[in-house]
Amino acid sequence: MDYKFLGNDFNIKELTPSDRKVLASELRDKILNTVSANGGHLAGNLGVVELTIALMTVFDPEKDKIVFDVGHQAYSYKLLTGRFDHFDTLRQEGGISGFPRISESKYDAFDTGHASTSVSAALGMARARDLKGKDDYVVAVIGDGALTGGLAFEGINDLGISKTRMIVILNDNEMSIDKNVGGLSHHLSKIRAKSGYIAAKKSTESFLKKVPLIGNLIIKIILAIKDWFRFITYRKRPSVFEDLGLVYYGPIDGNDSEQIIETLNAIKDIEAPVLLHVITKKGKGYSFAENKPSDYHGVGPFDLEKGVVPSDKKTFTNAFTEMIMPEAEINDRIVAVCAAMAMGTGLSEFAAKYPARFFDCGIAEEHCVTMASGLARSGFVPVVAIYSSFLQRAYDEIVHDCCFMNNHVVFAIDRAGFVGNDGHTHNGLRDMAVLCSMPNMTVFAPRDYKDMQNIFEYCINSCYGPCSIRYPRGCADYDEALYEDPSECIKPHLVGSKGNDYCLISIGVMCKNCETAYHDLAGSGLFGKHINLSMIKPVPVDELIAMIGNCKNVFVCEEGISLGGACDNIRAAISKKTDKYEFIPIAVEDDMIRAASAERQRELAGIDAKSIYNKIVSF
Amino acid sequence: MDYKFLGNDFNIKELTPSDRKVLASELRDKILNTVSANGGHLAGNLGVVELTIALMTVFDPEKDKIVFDVGHQAYSYKLLTGRFDHFDTLRQEGGISGFPRISESKYDAFDTGHASTSVSAALGMARARDLKGKDDYVVAVIGDGALTGGLAFEGINDLGISKTRMIVILNDNEMSIDKNVGGLSHHLSKIRAKSGYIAAKKSTESFLKKVPLIGNLIIKIILAIKDWFRFITYRKRPSVFEDLGLVYYGPIDGNDSEQIIETLNAIKDIEAPVLLHVITKKGKGYSFAENKPSDYHGVGPFDLEKGVVPSDKKTFTNAFTEMIMPEAEINDRIVAVCAAMAMGTGLSEFAAKYPARFFDCGIAEEHCVTMASGLARSGFVPVVAIYSSFLQRAYDEIVHDCCFMNNHVVFAIDRAGFVGNDGHTHNGLRDMAVLCSMPNMTVFAPRDYKDMQNIFEYCINSCYGPCSIRYPRGCADYDEALYEDPSECIKPHLVGSKGNDYCLISIGVMCKNCETAYHDLAGSGLFGKHINLSMIKPVPVDELIAMIGNCKNVFVCEEGISLGGACDNIRAAISKKTDKYEFIPIAVEDDMIRAASAERQRELAGIDAKSIYNKIVSF
Repeated sequence: MDYKFLGNDFNIKELTPSDRKVLASELRDKILNTVSANGGHLAGNLGVVELTIALMTVFDPEKDKIVFDVGHQAYSYKLLTGRFDHFDTLRQEGGISGFPRISESKYDAFDTGHASTSVSAALGMARARDLKGKDDYVVAVIGDGALTGGLAFEGINDLGISKTRMIVILNDNEMSIDKNVGGLSHHLSKIRAKSGYIAAKKSTESFLKKVPLIGNLIIKIILAIKDWFRFITYRKRPSVFEDLGLVYYGPIDGNDSEQIIETLNAIKDIEAPVLLHVITKKGKGYSFAENKPSDYHGVGPFDLEKGVVPSDKKTFTNAFTEMIMPEAEINDRIVAVCAAMAMGTGLSEFAAKYPARFFDCGIAEEHCVTMASGLARSGFVPVVAIYSSFLQRAYDEIVHDCCFMNNHVVFAIDRAGFVGNDGHTHNGLRDMAVLCSMPNMTVFAPRDYKDMQNIFEYCINSCYGPCSIRYPRGCADYDEALYEDPSECIKPHLVGSKGNDYCLISIGVMCKNCETAYHDLAGSGLFGKHINLSMIKPVPVDELIAMIGNCKNVFVCEEGISLGGACDNIRAAISKKTDKYEFIPIAVEDDMIRAASAERQRELAGIDAKSIYNKIVSF
Repeated sequence: MDYKFLGNDFNIKELTPSDRKVLASELRDKILNTVSANGGHLAGNLGVVELTIALMTVFDPEKDKIVFDVGHQAYSYKLLTGRFDHFDTLRQEGGISGFPRISESKYDAFDTGHASTSVSAALGMARARDLKGKDDYVVAVIGDGALTGGLAFEGINDLGISKTRMIVILNDNEMSIDKNVGGLSHHLSKIRAKSGYIAAKKSTESFLKKVPLIGNLIIKIILAIKDWFRFITYRKRPSVFEDLGLVYYGPIDGNDSEQIIETLNAIKDIEAPVLLHVITKKGKGYSFAENKPSDYHGVGPFDLEKGVVPSDKKTFTNAFTEMIMPEAEINDRIVAVCAAMAMGTGLSEFAAKYPARFFDCGIAEEHCVTMASGLARSGFVPVVAIYSSFLQRAYDEIVHDCCFMNNHVVFAIDRAGFVGNDGHTHNGLRDMAVLCSMPNMTVFAPRDYKDMQNIFEYCINSCYGPCSIRYPRGCADYDEALYEDPSECIKPHLVGSKGNDYCLISIGVMCKNCETAYHDLAGSGLFGKHINLSMIKPVPVDELIAMIGNCKNVFVCEEGISLGGACDNIRAAISKKTDKYEFIPIAVEDDMIRAASAERQRELAGIDAKSIYNKIVSF
């Protein structure tokens, strides 16, 4: 489709209000068509079209810095900063990233992906600007969801005392991925309710216009002292942000470019940290997404006419749901904790059925873990469901507040391993190395749903300390487990045994690729053993030694970083008993593999069947 | 010394106000005598004596839960919950811990050590209580310093919407370790200033007393409806806490047991989360500490009459000061960042000389790292000085906001390795495993001051990505480096070579113990090589292979956890070139080694000279 603006030369600063309306609809069209084809983040991006146009009109990304928090709402910004031509490659291998990337464009100020970093990063840039004696603008754009993260608070707390000129735009859509939670969210809704923000704005304007002569005069004066205009029109009662030292303006309509441009022009030169509160509508302009923004936060490819059709394919996520529900029915000590992701982690059904036992803590992984530890100290069994990549935020809390006290907390770690098109910031490759290094922690990587179910029951009923179950995005390769007796989930399982040329230990879901490699190796005259292992820590040393037998070279294939991962952990445990084996990791050496399908990412990482085959042959 | 109460049977709930004054002075006496003998946390503990008496008077630790944030202010609590007799063993091996420990006493509700965890942990306990249908009280005691940590905000944000009955006592002494920073701190001082809290309280009382008859009647009515009394007397204008959904009371005098008891009794049954703001004086009752609370936060043994006399012994911390000062003089791109610890990390001099280039972010390690990354993206070279154990809080930010973008941030990691009497929560044993696993990160462990200086200059001037320098608490074992040319800091150095029976690689300061073991081994007829290595990542593979030569067994001795540490990292790098070596870690297997001298902790961990000797002999 040919657009009037997008794809053509135009100066965004010279557009008229009606041009901007056209541009906004072109951006929405392009985003809808691209995301429905490639998958991606939809609702948030549709919500910030006008805000982005306003930012590009008022600021100059050649010198000003705009830091998008999380970054999954930066599609319009990418389209307006030279990336329209390649936008069809969004989230594909070698294509435009779904997130800001400094390696992709000089207009991207900071790589993002995890929430709540923007204020801190922007404050660093603003301080750098001050030290250099320059006068560029620095803007952080943060959603009300990301604001629940402690890092954002730390940033605002420091910003509040800094006196530096910097703008924080609070993009308030009442959502993170699910509906927002927490005292701050409640505070924001009170501000929204009290201000009647759009009505107030409109009535002021129409009042001014109703008094023609004086009105025009007043308008001129107002324009001359625009800071004060904003001050009077928009600055309301003190908010939490004022208490923390920011100058607060808002709320204004974040889907009205004109209003945002006017306001930004008025406040941008205030020599203080300013927070501008804008209200946007998630999913704006696409009725399916407006009505169910949670369902349209991140989507796979879908039919624009029909909207997203929920898949009925079983995944590890809904396998988890099927496990926790009956267990929670018979055991009322089970409680569930998540970080703003009930739906993504498969806890929606639990939340609906057991609201008193369900705690959505907001985007606050640290607090999730420490709060869960408090529950555990009081006799409950919290199941903390967090994606692998996001769990990194709680590294210190897992060690100190959970493992040191040997608290019985079960970590249900979804999206472990490669996640595909979100790219390297979302891959869950570090959890095994992190968790294996922690005292008292038991670590599992199930191979299939049945294995996972056995493990889950073991973790709930037989494991009296912290334990983790890490499972990937998507579907299992197998319908059935390798073993009958559920209690065998803690043992290694012999998948195949043709000889002693080598031994290949597959960790969890790596079973499939290893099985293929094992058969291909036999075809090439190399006859070894294939063992699948779910319990990575503690290592079932004796059973493993018995099973490895007389093989010398033991390859351990895992979907995670190599250093400190399953292979290193197995070597360390077994070398205390015998030094007759050599352990060679087949793991991820490069943990910055960019967006591609998860399968392709595994290829690039060298943990696909072919690479496993090659590695063993070359040895 | 014999006390009237301490060491004797008494029921704290039956004491009179004047008894409580006696008890307070006994507690102070005991704390002063113990800390001056053993070292420990002084100023904070002296500040909360009356608060602790009040807590013990109003609540019942048999069933109620009191969670002390950080926990270094819990000495009075320990003395009042059955630990007076053994208190002389404070912070000694096998003795009373300097922090709450569930393994030490059933009255300790939660293990603490790192800041900002109390609200989250207590909220978990309060929710557990609600689910059980019980009515115990749950109290979190948190300092205004710890409140700057994002985790505390996440906890308060969740608490604010929870509607659960729980009390947060904000122990406001205007300090964390150094003077507090940030917008919230400023907000608190405004509250203090506006309320004129003590004067107001006193004048209300004396006014009531001046109207004898009606006064008494009013007082009776007031006592009958004590909630309202508190509400009227103490509840001031909305604070940031009210905005976040907590009921705010205060500020009141935290060094007046009577006032706290009265207030706690009035508010404890409010069916909502309540924040009680108390003002305490750090160091109260010991004039040296009152005057210079920062100097008396944590101290070694000292003479009570003379106060703490600053040592003039050179340490790695002041070696760091001596390095950054001249470098900052010639390079104005160097900026410094710390987390509420300018003095502890050796940055006070920098802060005084270059205030515009110094950023104390509060107890906010995550923000420190991300903000520093923003500075780095804008061309500055931030030196982020954080203790090893506390840096764990920023795990995710170091990977995502720093390493992924290859930002040139220099991490000056003090207190790496065993720290001694603070115990396992403060040992810095995980940094090498954490940092070696991160992309683009260069990791150094200097052996001595000269080595550290060369490394520091290398990191500032020749390393264009993230780099870390980890060094221990205390003094170096050597005055001079092993080499002349500063650029050789990235190479391995041969310390001794007597044969090929074994090779021993010492990481950084492990040089001394390894040297002793190396000589003792020669005495026993085992002749090997000893190599010292400062640059752990990237591994100087070729130089190392050339130096190891024909030794087969290569022992790597490091002061950190074994899994994923220097040995695993060296093995991984070298095994890509040759498989002729076997690498055996001599590292810390148990990272929960409790308080003892650092030397003794090394013995317990098996990284003292004797253990190194034994390990090599037994192989």
